[in-house]
Amino acid sequence: MAVDVDGVMAQYQAKINERLGLFFDEQIEEASKISDYTRDVVANIKEYTLRGGKRLRPIFLIYGYKCLTEDDNIDAIIEASISIELMQSYLLIHDDIMDEDELRRGKPTFHIEYKNICAALFGEGEARKFGENMAILAGDLLEAYGMDVLTNSRFKEEYVKRALQKYTEIVKNVGYGQILDIMSEKKKDITEAEILLIHKLKTASYTIENPLQIGAILAGAVEADLAVMSNYGLPLGLAFQIQDDILGLFGTEEKIGKPVGSDIREGKKTLLILHALSNCSEKEKGIITSAMGNADVTMAEIDTIRDIVRETGSRDYSKRLVGEKIKEAIHAIEGSNFRAEAKEFLVKIADFVGVRDF
Amino acid sequence: MAVDVDGVMAQYQAKINERLGLFFDEQIEEASKISDYTRDVVANIKEYTLRGGKRLRPIFLIYGYKCLTEDDNIDAIIEASISIELMQSYLLIHDDIMDEDELRRGKPTFHIEYKNICAALFGEGEARKFGENMAILAGDLLEAYGMDVLTNSRFKEEYVKRALQKYTEIVKNVGYGQILDIMSEKKKDITEAEILLIHKLKTASYTIENPLQIGAILAGAVEADLAVMSNYGLPLGLAFQIQDDILGLFGTEEKIGKPVGSDIREGKKTLLILHALSNCSEKEKGIITSAMGNADVTMAEIDTIRDIVRETGSRDYSKRLVGEKIKEAIHAIEGSNFRAEAKEFLVKIADFVGVRDF
Repeated sequence: MAVDVDGVMAQYQAKINERLGLFFDEQIEEASKISDYTRDVVANIKEYTLRGGKRLRPIFLIYGYKCLTEDDNIDAIIEASISIELMQSYLLIHDDIMDEDELRRGKPTFHIEYKNICAALFGEGEARKFGENMAILAGDLLEAYGMDVLTNSRFKEEYVKRALQKYTEIVKNVGYGQILDIMSEKKKDITEAEILLIHKLKTASYTIENPLQIGAILAGAVEADLAVMSNYGLPLGLAFQIQDDILGLFGTEEKIGKPVGSDIREGKKTLLILHALSNCSEKEKGIITSAMGNADVTMAEIDTIRDIVRETGSRDYSKRLVGEKIKEAIHAIEGSNFRAEAKEFLVKIADFVGVRDF
Repeated sequence: MAVDVDGVMAQYQAKINERLGLFFDEQIEEASKISDYTRDVVANIKEYTLRGGKRLRPIFLIYGYKCLTEDDNIDAIIEASISIELMQSYLLIHDDIMDEDELRRGKPTFHIEYKNICAALFGEGEARKFGENMAILAGDLLEAYGMDVLTNSRFKEEYVKRALQKYTEIVKNVGYGQILDIMSEKKKDITEAEILLIHKLKTASYTIENPLQIGAILAGAVEADLAVMSNYGLPLGLAFQIQDDILGLFGTEEKIGKPVGSDIREGKKTLLILHALSNCSEKEKGIITSAMGNADVTMAEIDTIRDIVRETGSRDYSKRLVGEKIKEAIHAIEGSNFRAEAKEFLVKIADFVGVRDF
């Protein structure tokens, strides 16, 4: 049996997007009973959520379920899977306010969108503040939407309760990771251990390990099942994040949907940059340090930093680390007693993380 | 049997605060395993939540439960009741960012507190933005904490599920109310019907009706029970809000814990102001209109507006409305078949809303 990863992904993406669309249409219907304004906000949240994204998290959630059980309840698990995409949307909207990002998936971020709406309706005065307020509210709504979907999911009440516990655990951990991230931007002397902790909290757990676990819990997982998902999901999540850091510096805006070098502009030290800083000359160190957190950094400066990262071997080091972590993940899943089809998919998607360019 | 409302309130406030303290201590313990920074943020959220507040919402939640059942599970309902106070804390923190308020319960709002912390640790640069970011995260954490408490509450899984559905319904409605509120500040031509809708969404449902309903649901309520709680809670919640508007203009900063006239400074049209605008001279209208939304409005201008509100009979009109709504609420609860002790308490606390000065 050979799993066609691209085909499977496309098939689930379509189903997840369809379900997201239906969910939002229900919320729009409800919000339209209150006022045109609330209807429009929810419609914009729908557009934001559906404008792109690989739906990796819901797909992992579905495969966490499929690791343990036959597909007899596949509609219900697709329904439940959008909870984690709604969480993702909430986190992105709030992150974009905090990072003052203006572009997301190739279009204006939510707070910029409402800044523009405000300027058109009421004039420029305080339009930015208005946009940020609407984005805070949109994120808050999405946090509740995600919980709502999971609460109403059609599984045993006992399983749903455990899934909800996991869900709030994720929200807490991502929040804690973001606190560390914001602090680290300020204090400027971050260590590799701290970066790895932030990656674990903000990405590694939340992108792969936890979605798999929620799916597995909804299939009645025992602790040993969840442990396998950690052994697979944590290294793969870390590989995913490091790959993200590489793409953020060496990718193209068109592919990644946001400006190249955002991490540098926002002063976010990635493993890539930290490795370069430990292996470059004092002069190069000065170049990197003065670019970090500088919103007006030029493309020429980014190019110089790219050269430094390449020449210090930091890019290769990071790529090697991605490869090792993927191997570790595959090893963990291959040793499990999960269902063969799900295992094969998880092995193949692990490989995909290492070669993706978006 | 005569219920001593003050005594009962004080007794429950103490128990609720104790439970909140225990809950936060657990979260602090967890967050301290991650880093000193996350520990400190949660400790500050604890201080913020415990620094004051009447605990009205958890008390209503407890009494919603007591309407239907004997007190044999009172510890579990007190435990569950803090969920709604955690929600309140989340809403206040995010509202204060949106309204740019600097004072809450007599102390700095959360974003101002973290602005000050940032300035002390890292210097003034971008301290305000840093404070707002931390406050967004604190609110997001509290939204999850509230769901967590309810998810883990020790009641039948079926009841917990219904309570969670109600909980997310509240978060959504308050969010929609806040969207309308922010819009109404911008568009400036708000009607009485719109103000009443905002009050219903942001306060009337959320302060009394919904907490009562969550408590009742945890006791196994049927639809008819929840309807009585609407008939009692909605008019009383409206009375509560109008009383709040009166106190916001005519109270003292010491009693209400925030500057007098905040609504005017923020351009929030209350029923009180709307009534005055419809019943004053053109010249007086100009005075009110130019003060609305003016952050630098003087105490002398506030005094003039107080005079206008008094002389147009708007203060009396609002007080009369408070009285009528309280009567309506009491009538609804007296006609119910709820347990006598709970009914007596709800009647007495309704009276209290009308005379409170904080």
